[in-house]
Amino acid sequence: MIKVVFFDLDDTLVDTTKLAEMARRNAVENMIRHGLPVDFETAYSELIELINEYGSNFNRHFDYLLRRLDLPNNPKWIAAGVIAYHNTKFAHLKSVKGARKALLELKKDGFGLGVITDGDPIKQWEKIIRLELDDFFDNVFISDYLGVKKPHPKIFKKALKKMDVGPSEAVMVGDRLYSDIYGAKQVGMKTVWFRYGKYANRELEYLEYADFTIRSLEEVIEIVRGLNLEEKECADTEVHAD
Amino acid sequence: MIKVVFFDLDDTLVDTTKLAEMARRNAVENMIRHGLPVDFETAYSELIELINEYGSNFNRHFDYLLRRLDLPNNPKWIAAGVIAYHNTKFAHLKSVKGARKALLELKKDGFGLGVITDGDPIKQWEKIIRLELDDFFDNVFISDYLGVKKPHPKIFKKALKKMDVGPSEAVMVGDRLYSDIYGAKQVGMKTVWFRYGKYANRELEYLEYADFTIRSLEEVIEIVRGLNLEEKECADTEVHAD
Repeated sequence: MIKVVFFDLDDTLVDTTKLAEMARRNAVENMIRHGLPVDFETAYSELIELINEYGSNFNRHFDYLLRRLDLPNNPKWIAAGVIAYHNTKFAHLKSVKGARKALLELKKDGFGLGVITDGDPIKQWEKIIRLELDDFFDNVFISDYLGVKKPHPKIFKKALKKMDVGPSEAVMVGDRLYSDIYGAKQVGMKTVWFRYGKYANRELEYLEYADFTIRSLEEVIEIVRGLNLEEKECADTEVHAD
Repeated sequence: MIKVVFFDLDDTLVDTTKLAEMARRNAVENMIRHGLPVDFETAYSELIELINEYGSNFNRHFDYLLRRLDLPNNPKWIAAGVIAYHNTKFAHLKSVKGARKALLELKKDGFGLGVITDGDPIKQWEKIIRLELDDFFDNVFISDYLGVKKPHPKIFKKALKKMDVGPSEAVMVGDRLYSDIYGAKQVGMKTVWFRYGKYANRELEYLEYADFTIRSLEEVIEIVRGLNLEEKECADTEVHAD
């Protein structure tokens, strides 16, 4: 009997990759508008390279971009980048299509709901609160807060314990086959791979750990209902068999 | 002959103190709304104490607030504070009444314009760019970028040199008698004390360094025009006297 559904956050509930790309493009455009003497394509591709090297949570992207471009450290250009980046992130943060409907239906059905996500705790909470998703969740588990990252079993076990359910009573929904699906399967949860965003065609070697593959979050509702119905029917059959 | 007018930024051109107070109040309110188990007055007064102790550019105010209140480090509450703080700062950033008019008139009269300010270079540029004030200024001098703080003569001398004028050809306008007025006077500039904001009744021991005191920024226009007229009249008189 499924009692709890866990969701990954980035590119599962929140459209993070699209947003980040838009924010970076706007940042570079605004830097150029305020005097950065480089064409858009050069600056943007350097920024993307830099982010790939230093990670997306590195907080000196724009300083380092100037260094890479052999330009002086001009705080005006950095400020222009920061402003456009933040404005875009605040104005265009969106939940993934179908996310709110899926959460609402699951809540109505009485399921416990949780988030299991990697990343910086304050930034992850910012997304949840800005989208006003916080009231849906009984608990939010963030790896950098707990000191353990997906797919390590510990973060899933902590989540199960806190929600007071066994692994067979929980479903994990996420876009990453490695961290979400392989991770949750290791501890014995049911797994739903959300084939979405930049990981839709990556990490396919872990596909075998996905019990279900979906293209729309609303499919989660039927899957979870189906799992419980199936179990009920099995139980009924067993009763008849007695 | 006055050729250049320098302005301080915070609480001279930009309404910083009012904005920061509003942002902090909204931050505390949003933290409570998201579960911070403390009443508003307690939390707000602890935050103000903390800012007075650690400085307004310290970037862990909300973490430290929780520590002071003997509460666990809950990233949800911190995120709620950060969101409300940023939203307020972005939505309510305003130039001081009369600032834009004064800049426009001075520009029309052909004066060179500059900013001489303390603070973090990126944050200071953010304010200037967000308010779209950047096109008014020939140069912006920020202490944390130049490595020297007001009232040290060096920052004023650097500004004069870059603008290619002598001290008697420049006016400094600012709200702080110590850093702006005493500082600029030391190098020989004309000084206009803008009696505004939280420093309107402080540092009065430096009042003697103010050539003019104003309550509205628009008064700067007449002062500068007056100074140049006076000089012209003196020169004319000297010609007649010959």
